[in-house]
Amino acid sequence: MPEFLKVAAPQQIFDILSGFSRLAVEQVDLEHSLGRVLSLDVISKEDLPAWARSTMDGYAVRAKDTFGASDAVPALLEVVEQIAMGAIPKKSISPGQAAEIPTGGFLPEGADAVVMVEYTNPLPGGEIEVTKPVTKGENVLDRACDIAAGEKVLLAGKRLRPQDIGMLAGLGITKVDVYKKPKVAIISTGDEIVPVKQTPSLGQIRDINSYAIRALVETVSALAITLDIVRDEPALLRAALKNAAEVADVIVVSGGSSIGKRDYIVEVVSNLPEAKIYVHGIAISPGKPTLLAQTQGKPVFGLPGHPVSATIVAQVFLLPFLRYLEGEELKREPTGQRVSAVLATSAHSSHGREEYIRVKLEKEQGRLVAYPIFGKSGMMSTLAKADGFFIIPIHTEGIAAGEAVEVYLF
Amino acid sequence: MPEFLKVAAPQQIFDILSGFSRLAVEQVDLEHSLGRVLSLDVISKEDLPAWARSTMDGYAVRAKDTFGASDAVPALLEVVEQIAMGAIPKKSISPGQAAEIPTGGFLPEGADAVVMVEYTNPLPGGEIEVTKPVTKGENVLDRACDIAAGEKVLLAGKRLRPQDIGMLAGLGITKVDVYKKPKVAIISTGDEIVPVKQTPSLGQIRDINSYAIRALVETVSALAITLDIVRDEPALLRAALKNAAEVADVIVVSGGSSIGKRDYIVEVVSNLPEAKIYVHGIAISPGKPTLLAQTQGKPVFGLPGHPVSATIVAQVFLLPFLRYLEGEELKREPTGQRVSAVLATSAHSSHGREEYIRVKLEKEQGRLVAYPIFGKSGMMSTLAKADGFFIIPIHTEGIAAGEAVEVYLF
Repeated sequence: MPEFLKVAAPQQIFDILSGFSRLAVEQVDLEHSLGRVLSLDVISKEDLPAWARSTMDGYAVRAKDTFGASDAVPALLEVVEQIAMGAIPKKSISPGQAAEIPTGGFLPEGADAVVMVEYTNPLPGGEIEVTKPVTKGENVLDRACDIAAGEKVLLAGKRLRPQDIGMLAGLGITKVDVYKKPKVAIISTGDEIVPVKQTPSLGQIRDINSYAIRALVETVSALAITLDIVRDEPALLRAALKNAAEVADVIVVSGGSSIGKRDYIVEVVSNLPEAKIYVHGIAISPGKPTLLAQTQGKPVFGLPGHPVSATIVAQVFLLPFLRYLEGEELKREPTGQRVSAVLATSAHSSHGREEYIRVKLEKEQGRLVAYPIFGKSGMMSTLAKADGFFIIPIHTEGIAAGEAVEVYLF
Repeated sequence: MPEFLKVAAPQQIFDILSGFSRLAVEQVDLEHSLGRVLSLDVISKEDLPAWARSTMDGYAVRAKDTFGASDAVPALLEVVEQIAMGAIPKKSISPGQAAEIPTGGFLPEGADAVVMVEYTNPLPGGEIEVTKPVTKGENVLDRACDIAAGEKVLLAGKRLRPQDIGMLAGLGITKVDVYKKPKVAIISTGDEIVPVKQTPSLGQIRDINSYAIRALVETVSALAITLDIVRDEPALLRAALKNAAEVADVIVVSGGSSIGKRDYIVEVVSNLPEAKIYVHGIAISPGKPTLLAQTQGKPVFGLPGHPVSATIVAQVFLLPFLRYLEGEELKREPTGQRVSAVLATSAHSSHGREEYIRVKLEKEQGRLVAYPIFGKSGMMSTLAKADGFFIIPIHTEGIAAGEAVEVYLF
């Protein structure tokens, strides 16, 4: 059996993951694009707004004509039109002319500013006095001031939020080019693993990992494909992995926490078509016996069988990687929400490994306090009781009570 | 036309919203339960683990038998069995007896502790010497130490996370009782609104709100039902709202930013069956001309027509309310992720209204700095450029540059 020669640091894992190619692209309807990642920059074909508008009730003018105007020496302008709300001005404004305009009204050709009605006096015969000068653009919402035609409004790699979708709707863009969602095949292995519906006999346990990892994968909107539980039989595992590589972009196999079983998974993976084992072992706790490999260009994550370890490794490495595959930059930290908290009791770690400490958060005197939850890694209840976890970095021996920690929420 | 008599403070809005009944319940498969909210406590029918196990290689014993044992005066025990991994012990341990047990092996009846192999010496004739006492439970993972039968493992009102689903899988719970997802009918109104696929003539704008609000509703996994755009015609609006009340749990109508149109929406809503207008106007900016009403027990949100205002009001009031309807506690703050940042430039507000300031976040010298984005509320690009917003409370006149703000991320 192969030995555990390759124990990698967490950052090396991210280095390896960043070498995989992103997924193919597709076009989707704008109304189904929430959370999808753009594969192309979006360029506006239109000006928004398409026409300059007044922001005040008053008179559309050529700013030059009002230069030096005052109560003592008003500028005299001929009113050529009354522009109605929503109507296209019929006349253009020549020197010495003005048009009455409401708030929101379309600016006529030739005009470049609006004088507020307060600074005008109507004269008999369709003329007005302007008693205060305006500068070019004053009281006007310019054409294209929101978005100009030809402008890149959203860049490739952007995950679409509701207001991005709103903006695209405003520009009449009804289809967007996005990366495909990653398809993740999930396989639990082990003679002792039984389907969740089945009552386990002594020594058997239910297939927690398929459910927990499926749900984790769904938190980043990837598509989970749960495959059948595989017994500890190399030929069966090989067949299952080959099938997984055909139906999915990423393969996640869990199980093999004991040395012997872990080695047999490594053995089977090494013998897959075009296989490469990157690491079998990561300097982390929990989750050390994690395998990272590929077959035919498809990444293979071999997660520990213990559900708590499997869940945390998936959160730390798999989920950021899925977001990367879907076109985002690779973030080298867990996905999801992060909060600052004060550590309630000191947490120690072995030098040389990155440690993930599960915590319960309590609000005390207006600040968040993180209480470490200690418990054997097989205990799923410790994870269900936890609100999140913080990281003790690889070259740190611990964090003292009272220090601030960044907690990644589950 | 009715006057704008009822301008409410934001907290009054939440008070009103908390009076609506939660949605009906349904049962779903565990594998489709991510993000659903439990309507009943989940009680375990099983002990987890179902049998005590050893956490060490050694001998299963009765702790009492090792009392006072030392190198000088070892305890002498008869070895009655060699327990194999995963096998059910055949014999029970009587006083003076022990059984060899591997790590993870099932503890035999009668035994209550495990002596590590290091503290034992084998003797000829199937006996051992124990050279160190153990206490009851030492080196043993007790039956039910993770979860006990009858224990409430998750409480009603809990939104299911991946590890919760993993724990339920471990307990063999394959169906969960949850609240139904809220169905939200979305209606845009206004003669000037055209479908997104259509090129607007001058004075028309595309239906941004249907898209942006649909996407917002989807961020909390509620079900959006986009209905047709309704022209400014009371009979048409009435018909659309009555239809919406039939197909959805919550009605969101947007439009009517000008005083006249706003009043006509209030008028139509007041005349719906069993209608009640709670407020028409909230002391907030943007978003003041917001209507809150109900018809036949169904809440009606009348959002401003300006997309930026509509989006922010939905974020602040509608989304927390949808989570409440689905069984969670009503959180009186925007949903989603929150980060602390330092305000880059002072932000002022009118006393007596709560203000939502959009910001762009920049990482500078290891801290987040929030740059307010100022721009006319009609400009969708200001919202697309923003990373989030912070709140200037209702009785605060502003926040100075350099102060900390809590930014709600979009």
